[in-house]
Amino acid sequence: MEEQKFTINKDENSQTFTFGNPPAELILDLGEKLGPITLAYETWGKLNEQNSNAILIVHALSGDSHAAGADGWWENLIGPGKGIDTDKYFVICSNVIGGCRGSTGPSSMNPKTGEPYGTDFPIITIGDMVNAQKRLIDRFGIEKLVSVIGGSMGGMQVLQWMVAYPDTIRSAIPIATTLKHTPQQIAFNEVSRQAIMADPDWKNGHYYGSAVPAKGLAVARMIGHITYMSDASMAEKFGRRLRPDKEPFKFSAEFEVEGYLHYRGDNFVKRFDANSYLYITKAIDYFNLLNGNKKLASIFAGLKAKVLVISFKSDWLYPTYQSQEIVKACKLSGVDTTYCEINSTYGHDSFLLETEQETQLIKHFLNTVSNGHNGGKQ
Amino acid sequence: MEEQKFTINKDENSQTFTFGNPPAELILDLGEKLGPITLAYETWGKLNEQNSNAILIVHALSGDSHAAGADGWWENLIGPGKGIDTDKYFVICSNVIGGCRGSTGPSSMNPKTGEPYGTDFPIITIGDMVNAQKRLIDRFGIEKLVSVIGGSMGGMQVLQWMVAYPDTIRSAIPIATTLKHTPQQIAFNEVSRQAIMADPDWKNGHYYGSAVPAKGLAVARMIGHITYMSDASMAEKFGRRLRPDKEPFKFSAEFEVEGYLHYRGDNFVKRFDANSYLYITKAIDYFNLLNGNKKLASIFAGLKAKVLVISFKSDWLYPTYQSQEIVKACKLSGVDTTYCEINSTYGHDSFLLETEQETQLIKHFLNTVSNGHNGGKQ
Repeated sequence: MEEQKFTINKDENSQTFTFGNPPAELILDLGEKLGPITLAYETWGKLNEQNSNAILIVHALSGDSHAAGADGWWENLIGPGKGIDTDKYFVICSNVIGGCRGSTGPSSMNPKTGEPYGTDFPIITIGDMVNAQKRLIDRFGIEKLVSVIGGSMGGMQVLQWMVAYPDTIRSAIPIATTLKHTPQQIAFNEVSRQAIMADPDWKNGHYYGSAVPAKGLAVARMIGHITYMSDASMAEKFGRRLRPDKEPFKFSAEFEVEGYLHYRGDNFVKRFDANSYLYITKAIDYFNLLNGNKKLASIFAGLKAKVLVISFKSDWLYPTYQSQEIVKACKLSGVDTTYCEINSTYGHDSFLLETEQETQLIKHFLNTVSNGHNGGKQ
Repeated sequence: MEEQKFTINKDENSQTFTFGNPPAELILDLGEKLGPITLAYETWGKLNEQNSNAILIVHALSGDSHAAGADGWWENLIGPGKGIDTDKYFVICSNVIGGCRGSTGPSSMNPKTGEPYGTDFPIITIGDMVNAQKRLIDRFGIEKLVSVIGGSMGGMQVLQWMVAYPDTIRSAIPIATTLKHTPQQIAFNEVSRQAIMADPDWKNGHYYGSAVPAKGLAVARMIGHITYMSDASMAEKFGRRLRPDKEPFKFSAEFEVEGYLHYRGDNFVKRFDANSYLYITKAIDYFNLLNGNKKLASIFAGLKAKVLVISFKSDWLYPTYQSQEIVKACKLSGVDTTYCEINSTYGHDSFLLETEQETQLIKHFLNTVSNGHNGGKQ
């Protein structure tokens, strides 16, 4: 039996779970072994005696386990009496492997060398992220989750749960996501990676202990932010207004939109690891539930979970037609599926911002799941 | 009287016009003086005796004066018997100032120092580009152009001609363009500039004689290419196909779309100057015919030229609504305006690729202009 560390840091609500010590490493989708693995996670609410009231929240590219509570990335949606009601449900949010927010990733120590992995870290997939999360869910003794919920890359993890562990979930809510990454989506990620790798401080990924590739990562994040907003939301937020405090330099940020992008780029560098950005975007690009010439009708064959698919009208990074393809795949498999497009101007960011409408949709949907199985009642 | 050099290189069809020697420099929109100025241009067809059959073609961000002939960027549209018929019209295509394709720009010699300008080159605007072109048209003795035609940044120059020299044009064809650059458009340009300036080889713009900021410029170009295509055209061209000749490196270009972007980025570096990319994108970002709180109805007041506005359905960089705003501004001023949206999937690149449909539209439009004034007949 392998050793598993399961620690709870009560002060910060941030916890870690370590598993997969050699020789019981996680075998990754591309064949390599990874272990030991630490997953950072947070929980809210109380797991009932039947272990039947748990909901798993999964996060997007730059997210982390801090979904709820002060400054949580979905704090308006998760909490007592909220859309995902922590008085009723035990809510777990797990960080992903490959990341840099407490879970094992390229900045973690490589047990074989005693140095950070850097680019010796193996390539991971969305499937690997979900396989690691499954170990966490098992550790809690949860046989069936009430739901698994996430947007963007979180939505891909939700879809992966539907495919890899259909019997472990009673429902699923994939938001603003896609069955497979398209060339345009790959292209934006690739340019971001190129920006990072063009930074001489990147040093083929072995920069830990010296300067980080800050300029490259900032450019990558700026590209991301453009794709997260919409033409309309940018026009509304910034117009062509000039910054009052413009620096006296020819190519400085003059327009407010430029200042905003710089701010976002610079701030990101303080909290995110450039190598994690490479690995996670690559995992996203590999995501394709239709690979191996799989038919749309067979992806979710046999799935008994209820599904709620949500997309946003102004989201051009993960456009509505991609959510409709998920719905079609579900319907072709006879899955009980509800679909809603929210009429928002916030672009892809809508999944983080339109929490009022998401609250209504998710609350009612979870009620139907709980009522059907009597699972949410304590 | 200032000295003007007017040279013709018969072998390559590439010609230059030099003017604005001190103290007769061009006074730029932002107040600085620039001179001497060389404009590279090419011509096709023959100027008639009345100098009344000339058409000016203006190019986009990375374009040059080589619009027609072998490998010309609009070779399918311009030539004997083509949409812009060089048997009938004398066609001039002028490069822009700030560029690096034969015209005065940041890589040109600064007469004050004897060194390349670098970032000592003054900030230029679309208005400055057009003012320089006007000098070229004057030098030919052309009082009225049959038309001025261009797409993207070329379209901005067309709009600027309509505003600055309304009596010099009998018609205008702005294609896939906008009255003012929006925050989203500025954002893409700004991230491109940041990628260039993050390259340590940029050296604040004074890199001539040493290594050029190749990696930064390649990233900038890759960002551009994503915005020039569409989700649909990328899906059609690349799908999720993998490259057969993938390098054995973790973050190498595996997907065909990645290989394409690398190829485009690397090739661009061989023919374009990074500083010109900074200056020209900045000129584009400054473009705003509505500045100074100008009303839509007053932009083109008094314009007697006929106008044909063309946009493309899948162009998300310069979306159709922006062309419709141009049409609205024209109509509000009583300008004789025709509008057509071409149903293409090529995205912004459509203006370079949909030459068959453009041929029909432009040929008929130019006929109505010529017939009205008897100018195209020789």
